[in-house]
Amino acid sequence: MRSVEILDTTLRDGAQAEGISFSVEDKLAIIKILDEAGIHIIECGNPYSNPKDRELFEKLRSVKTNSLVAAFGSTRKKDSDVKSDMTLRSLIGSGACVASVVGKSSLFQVEHVLGTTGDENLKMISESISELKNAGMNVYFDCEHFFDGYKNNKDYSMRSLQAASDAGADCLVLCDTNGAALCDEVTQIVSEVVKTFPDTKIGVHFHNDLGLATANTLAAVTAGAVHIQGTLLGFGERCGNASLAEIIPTLTYKMGYECIPESSLRKLYEYARSVANVCEYEINKSTPYIGERAFSHKGGMHIDGMLKDSSAFEHISPEMVGNQRNFLLSEVSGKGAILNKAGEYISFSGKNDEKAIKVLEAIKQKELEGYQYENAEASFELLVKNLFGMVKEYFTVELYRVMGEKSVGATKNIASAMVKIEVGGNTEFTAAEGNGPVNALDGALRRALEVFFPSLKELRLIDYRVRVVNPEEATGTKVRVTITSQSDSLPQFSTIGVSTDVIDASFNALYDSYIYFLSKTE
Amino acid sequence: MRSVEILDTTLRDGAQAEGISFSVEDKLAIIKILDEAGIHIIECGNPYSNPKDRELFEKLRSVKTNSLVAAFGSTRKKDSDVKSDMTLRSLIGSGACVASVVGKSSLFQVEHVLGTTGDENLKMISESISELKNAGMNVYFDCEHFFDGYKNNKDYSMRSLQAASDAGADCLVLCDTNGAALCDEVTQIVSEVVKTFPDTKIGVHFHNDLGLATANTLAAVTAGAVHIQGTLLGFGERCGNASLAEIIPTLTYKMGYECIPESSLRKLYEYARSVANVCEYEINKSTPYIGERAFSHKGGMHIDGMLKDSSAFEHISPEMVGNQRNFLLSEVSGKGAILNKAGEYISFSGKNDEKAIKVLEAIKQKELEGYQYENAEASFELLVKNLFGMVKEYFTVELYRVMGEKSVGATKNIASAMVKIEVGGNTEFTAAEGNGPVNALDGALRRALEVFFPSLKELRLIDYRVRVVNPEEATGTKVRVTITSQSDSLPQFSTIGVSTDVIDASFNALYDSYIYFLSKTE
Repeated sequence: MRSVEILDTTLRDGAQAEGISFSVEDKLAIIKILDEAGIHIIECGNPYSNPKDRELFEKLRSVKTNSLVAAFGSTRKKDSDVKSDMTLRSLIGSGACVASVVGKSSLFQVEHVLGTTGDENLKMISESISELKNAGMNVYFDCEHFFDGYKNNKDYSMRSLQAASDAGADCLVLCDTNGAALCDEVTQIVSEVVKTFPDTKIGVHFHNDLGLATANTLAAVTAGAVHIQGTLLGFGERCGNASLAEIIPTLTYKMGYECIPESSLRKLYEYARSVANVCEYEINKSTPYIGERAFSHKGGMHIDGMLKDSSAFEHISPEMVGNQRNFLLSEVSGKGAILNKAGEYISFSGKNDEKAIKVLEAIKQKELEGYQYENAEASFELLVKNLFGMVKEYFTVELYRVMGEKSVGATKNIASAMVKIEVGGNTEFTAAEGNGPVNALDGALRRALEVFFPSLKELRLIDYRVRVVNPEEATGTKVRVTITSQSDSLPQFSTIGVSTDVIDASFNALYDSYIYFLSKTE
Repeated sequence: MRSVEILDTTLRDGAQAEGISFSVEDKLAIIKILDEAGIHIIECGNPYSNPKDRELFEKLRSVKTNSLVAAFGSTRKKDSDVKSDMTLRSLIGSGACVASVVGKSSLFQVEHVLGTTGDENLKMISESISELKNAGMNVYFDCEHFFDGYKNNKDYSMRSLQAASDAGADCLVLCDTNGAALCDEVTQIVSEVVKTFPDTKIGVHFHNDLGLATANTLAAVTAGAVHIQGTLLGFGERCGNASLAEIIPTLTYKMGYECIPESSLRKLYEYARSVANVCEYEINKSTPYIGERAFSHKGGMHIDGMLKDSSAFEHISPEMVGNQRNFLLSEVSGKGAILNKAGEYISFSGKNDEKAIKVLEAIKQKELEGYQYENAEASFELLVKNLFGMVKEYFTVELYRVMGEKSVGATKNIASAMVKIEVGGNTEFTAAEGNGPVNALDGALRRALEVFFPSLKELRLIDYRVRVVNPEEATGTKVRVTITSQSDSLPQFSTIGVSTDVIDASFNALYDSYIYFLSKTE
């Protein structure tokens, strides 16, 4: 089976997208997901230009991945020496095993943007690659503006490839930097490059300015490219990079190439959501393969057809990418799912059972208030059990009071919280400071509760998220707080709180997390 | 010049998209926009199955458009008579001059979904088309499942085309109903159909399930198709229909076909927004040509290049589709972009100018703290001007104190804020309640400030967003608050605040919004 090598550049070119910015921890989390997904090479960042990336590469020295780690940088500066070039030094010192080194392959760009001669640029390419190869790195040469350059001055663009190849580049990556290549051009140009460099791996890197990044990538593979670049979710500068989540299933299922393991492909939907979560990126519902609507059916005629034969209106089975089929006809499927879940805690005789109706009404009410239980199953469980008196009242919060203040000249604001809780007639009144009101409230509540429930010490908050529910209503809007907790004795779980007040919403989510933990462990 | 005929099916196939539904007035508004945009044929709806569409077609009798109006319906039912078939009667009675009539062209579909014989289906096609032609209509035959059918049983699919052509169809529209065709297949199949029916107009209709609707449409035109179908914004069932706003500029500017008048093409951005407005549809910012980010530039190297030669990183001039160029400020945008933007407020002699260095250092420091200025240019402007004492100190906040509390039995928590501000030796101490701490703080600050600056009354908060900067550090994490404000005297503007404390972050963003407003209006 023919195979295609995949490089994900979410963390480098994807970081160019508007609204995307990564902390070092974000990057580590995404590397973990991409590694598990079986991506061959992960381009992690630019160790020269970005101090956060330097920190990342330091940390990566002690992280084991199956994916190869790539560091990105450019060829040496014009009229300078490779030995003292800071970019090359950073690449070599990064600890990454792959160097993605970008250089110009368009004479127009060399003369008008770089402001040097074609010959000096060829030297920059050649010397930089030799230097990196001598340092033992795998060198992927990103030929910036290759397609535009080729159309403008084919001879020079091919010479830039020759220089890179002669210097020992492991892969020549043809980049459509402006995203303006048409499929026919790609087919023709990639074919010629593959023919000219039969012994070098040829790769491609497309942008989506014409809506053709996917098509161009597929055309390039058909023409002989064996390495492709993109971002898992397709985001990137302007109209984005080629979307790997869109390309990999087609290469695998429709064109017969081996990319990532099929077991990973069957979890593509989940991986995509995990990455989106870290990036706080919303996956467009209509995205091929992984969008929530990718397998939705609305038209009456279509659903009729679907019920007769699912292949009538689906090009693959949704499970092949971890997605699911979805009929938009009615709320019945919604009710079914809710009762199916609630049935894990209580038993119903059917949809019209009194208990079932009570559950559905409670959920409906909560959803109207802005609650969403799909990422907060612990709160869902508590809600259902509370309806039937199945949760013990472990404690009562008699009062909480949170204060934030700042006075003139103060370099820091002060946040503090007081709480009073009651357990079986005994009360505990305490206070705590924090680096924000929610942090202070959490601190005070724990301090008071641990007097009665020492086991709570093992409960740790590991994730805290705030989402605005109706952003158009200014500061009077509702917020949804989701908290994820971890402990030695329970699997990780999430709780939710909604309120117009971020402190109150956080309190609700914190409260659920303590109660859930106690209900499972006490 | 070769030309391509465009049919927009926003109002028919587009209405299958989740979240899209049209009133008669909506449809009339969209028809007006599409007509002005120079779309050749507007498929308005299904007069048989949808009573609202019957009303629409009645109204259209008295609306003058340059675009041709098309009504959609299917071939006659199996084993029935064309003379009494309700769908055909509705099409004929609709007043539309084009009938889009859909029929099956895949034998598998005929036998398994329709449940009839291949021969009966051919009769259904042939008799229905003859009937519509006899009634004087232009008949466009939509061959459902054509590409799948062809791959499965080419002979039958070609016979269905022959039946339609013999019956006098004006156009044979090859439909990729499941959205699963690959470009190479499209090229090959369309070429063959064009060769087989040299005297009939060949059209195509693609769906985007593989992310290839645009590429397939372009490939079909190259292979000889002269009629294309899609929805202006690309929405439709599942992953959507071919997007005309994405296809038309490429056909015109890159491939040399005549589609809509160039004067309309130069207003494409505006037409797209008008249609989106009626549909209450949000255009993805990364959409090719018409997305807000389609011509945004963030990467430092890219912006440097752009400033030297815009063709370096733009495949067309944004004005050619009515869009505009846009530089984003950010940690990766580099010195060039920051100084370019800052140069609007102060003047530098160059990158190494003392002032330039001061600006760059301040921005770098702020970005390390978690600030992001790309969506908060008002805060950026204040930051730069403050460095050089260019912003008057309108007021001092001597103290703010925010309280949130809830006691046992209370159905609601209480949020309140006290503030003390000082202006030219006079102080104002006041308080306000709110439905959350930030809302209370905003209320108290405004109440105090309006005593001195009554013009602040016209400043309105219209958007408030909270983002968690490092979500893994639980409630001790930093949050980034972005506030958008509007007033009668200024264009909308955005400000930002970052802190571990959501109240403090909100305070910073609120503070900037008041100062920015005052600096522009006082």
